[in-house]
Amino acid sequence: MPQPDNPQPGAVFTTRTPRVVAARRLQRRRDRDETGRFLAEGPQAVREALAAGAVAELFFTADGLARHGDLVARAGSGAGRASQVDDDALAALAETVQPQGLVAVCAQRDVPLGDALRKAPRLVAVCADIRDPGNAGTVLRTADAAGATAVVFAGDSVDPYNGKAVRASAGSLFHVDVVRARDASAAVAALRAAGLRVLAADGYGEADLFELPDLARPTAWLFGSEAHGLPGALKAQADARVRVPILGGAESLNLAAAAAVCLYASAKALKEPM
Amino acid sequence: MPQPDNPQPGAVFTTRTPRVVAARRLQRRRDRDETGRFLAEGPQAVREALAAGAVAELFFTADGLARHGDLVARAGSGAGRASQVDDDALAALAETVQPQGLVAVCAQRDVPLGDALRKAPRLVAVCADIRDPGNAGTVLRTADAAGATAVVFAGDSVDPYNGKAVRASAGSLFHVDVVRARDASAAVAALRAAGLRVLAADGYGEADLFELPDLARPTAWLFGSEAHGLPGALKAQADARVRVPILGGAESLNLAAAAAVCLYASAKALKEPM
Repeated sequence: MPQPDNPQPGAVFTTRTPRVVAARRLQRRRDRDETGRFLAEGPQAVREALAAGAVAELFFTADGLARHGDLVARAGSGAGRASQVDDDALAALAETVQPQGLVAVCAQRDVPLGDALRKAPRLVAVCADIRDPGNAGTVLRTADAAGATAVVFAGDSVDPYNGKAVRASAGSLFHVDVVRARDASAAVAALRAAGLRVLAADGYGEADLFELPDLARPTAWLFGSEAHGLPGALKAQADARVRVPILGGAESLNLAAAAAVCLYASAKALKEPM
Repeated sequence: MPQPDNPQPGAVFTTRTPRVVAARRLQRRRDRDETGRFLAEGPQAVREALAAGAVAELFFTADGLARHGDLVARAGSGAGRASQVDDDALAALAETVQPQGLVAVCAQRDVPLGDALRKAPRLVAVCADIRDPGNAGTVLRTADAAGATAVVFAGDSVDPYNGKAVRASAGSLFHVDVVRARDASAAVAALRAAGLRVLAADGYGEADLFELPDLARPTAWLFGSEAHGLPGALKAQADARVRVPILGGAESLNLAAAAAVCLYASAKALKEPM
């Protein structure tokens, strides 16, 4: 028998409580898309989500309350609510073994590209057709670390609110402007129109990253899929196609490593006094 | 009933053929350590393994022969042998769904640190206590791409011949000198004695990578575990502790991204005319 949706104070939710059942469905993309919500687990992600004002509801166990009472208090005192669950319910909500007793339902944070561009960003990362959620989250984290203020998921990219992507982003999902742009070509055109130089990361690009001039210009980096790289039309649309030079016997870098090298090349140039 | 170990020409091995059974055991570390062999799957890894003279035996399906007959011929004509297996046997040997009909038994390739150092390497990567095989393979691949000629797995690091590590290395395992050094401190001392500057990648390091002088000096980079970073004693032993600057809200970079940025900072400096 389901428990009431609004239990008495002190009630502990189980796997059958309707709010837990509804939250658990957010592990599926369809339910995330329909509700505009997603799950974030563990104290680091919950802390960043609270700071971003993104927490709609925090589920915590007795252990989570004992270890992270400050986060539970902040969740309960804000616009959201905090609900105690039993261990089985938390295990059902979490995708990892060690979420330390905390899982939050968060509001998706994407903004239209135009809003992100009005802030005149100096560094933007664009993921086109990236399918692996771990890679998507890692690029988000690396872009944030390198000082990018917006990350665009363009074309047929993975859902950045996928649990694995959220975990790989290590909180950076809550720091940057996340943009979803189905039409990658239109997004690139908008980036160029906003005055950003668009550089396509391409293992076979004509420009060598080590020799590229003007890296201190505001830049949008395009990164393509693990398997196929960037679509030819997007590469053609960029101001330059840039290869990270391969100095040893490796055929290529993986996506996350190439993105780190490219984004940090821009970060260094942007940071240096001109 | 087991099939004979040396079947007639044209025989097709099954999951029960002793050589297939023995090869399959190489999915376990204990058997890899005991035999000094490991498995590499798919055409890219097999091609690199053949080029390195590391293939002891290549197992191929009818499909693998049709698609990669050149590799099968090279395996059979060298010191190794090539053995046809049925689809079930290949599926049992492979850890991925798409090895394209090829799995090779390879000889482990590690060399003593002294041998690697006699070649006067200008760039070396040291993984200390790295536990994730995907990270180990990615660092190998990135180090190879950046021009490192040796990668040292020190302390309590994951087995670089683990299947996931082999796949993540994308062939680079066959390009560089792989060194295993149980005593990380002794390895660092040997690297310094060989004239290499030892730099510890450390999110809290006193030196900013962007401002570090003399990156064109021959360098060994130390990378620590995902969870705990480098042990304090190893950090103290290094010539400097270097942080990749974090310009946005991210708390840190992940291991593979930090390694890519550090190794490529050295690669760029080493490549520039002095």
